[in-house]
Amino acid sequence: MADSNALEGLTQALRKLPGVGVKSAARMAFHLLQHDKPGALQIARALEHAVNSVGHCTLCNTLTEQAICVTCLNLQRDRSKLCVVETPADQAALERTLAYRGLYFVLMGKLSPLDGVGPNEIGLQKLFDRVLPKDERGALLPTTAREVQEVILATNFTAEGEATAHVIAQALKSRGVQVTRLARGVPVGSELEYVDLGTIAHALVDRR
Amino acid sequence: MADSNALEGLTQALRKLPGVGVKSAARMAFHLLQHDKPGALQIARALEHAVNSVGHCTLCNTLTEQAICVTCLNLQRDRSKLCVVETPADQAALERTLAYRGLYFVLMGKLSPLDGVGPNEIGLQKLFDRVLPKDERGALLPTTAREVQEVILATNFTAEGEATAHVIAQALKSRGVQVTRLARGVPVGSELEYVDLGTIAHALVDRR
Repeated sequence: MADSNALEGLTQALRKLPGVGVKSAARMAFHLLQHDKPGALQIARALEHAVNSVGHCTLCNTLTEQAICVTCLNLQRDRSKLCVVETPADQAALERTLAYRGLYFVLMGKLSPLDGVGPNEIGLQKLFDRVLPKDERGALLPTTAREVQEVILATNFTAEGEATAHVIAQALKSRGVQVTRLARGVPVGSELEYVDLGTIAHALVDRR
Repeated sequence: MADSNALEGLTQALRKLPGVGVKSAARMAFHLLQHDKPGALQIARALEHAVNSVGHCTLCNTLTEQAICVTCLNLQRDRSKLCVVETPADQAALERTLAYRGLYFVLMGKLSPLDGVGPNEIGLQKLFDRVLPKDERGALLPTTAREVQEVILATNFTAEGEATAHVIAQALKSRGVQVTRLARGVPVGSELEYVDLGTIAHALVDRR
């Protein structure tokens, strides 16, 4: 190893990046210092700027530099529908379909008890406050007076995403909110022979 | 995508890291801003500190904060042997064996004409100046007056590493320097059945 505390410190710091181990971190540090010092400074400045300026949208909880994000401010969108996703990347995937014109709520995570992620670590209470507004005396507004009429659960179809969807559905359905889930079924372009059994079973049950 | 120029800028900047594409960069940016803002600032500070303080060792060309690195300053080491490696990581691998007590020269790269890396991009001239010192009138010192008596080529056994070793060997042998190469052969612990033909052929030719 080159004898440099600065290099060692940089390697240690780069391991904070998700998916980067000690060998990758060392390779990144060498690459930046040997071949791309301007790039290294660009990353440093971008990190500081983002940390100091990026916060959460008051309405949908996504990362934004404004108090309310551009999507939530868009008056063209259907404000009666709220699509719940885990991350901004999931929201971006839905946006690319051009098939949805409602609003979003970004949990910024998923329930994961084994990792210590409970309802308070992700934006569940903020979601409930948004969907179930109260009047000035703290009583729930009646269903007809609420802005959000339908909550579409678009968390991932993993164990943790399903559990997160289940918890949200339980809490909202009992208070008269219409809750739907993205359809499970056979992916477009796939051959049945190669689709897993659980997916085919769901596609059969949900046939239309 | 969350609407944030700072986030977008950070994602773009993180793509400067080797092996990081647009999806990895976005995941890294979200992770740092959502879960680890102190880690993000630590990376930013480590980058700036390293860029401002790390340079090349005058003698061996490795990355260091001092003018001459700790390895080159170590008087316990055999100064008549010089082991040429591509990167500090390769040097670290050799050091872990505890089998070598000479000095190193770190090329910080390898010849790679297709990528535009020629002799001037890696430290070849610095290596030649080190191995072949001149007197005050610019004439080569005779072999017996030189500090480095043996150059051990430990570049990687890839096409580019072999080419780099070949170029160095050609230049030095013609000026009376003893040049050796790490032995090729069957790796320790491996079964012949699974070793590739080229390796077995080299192990046969170099048998001892």
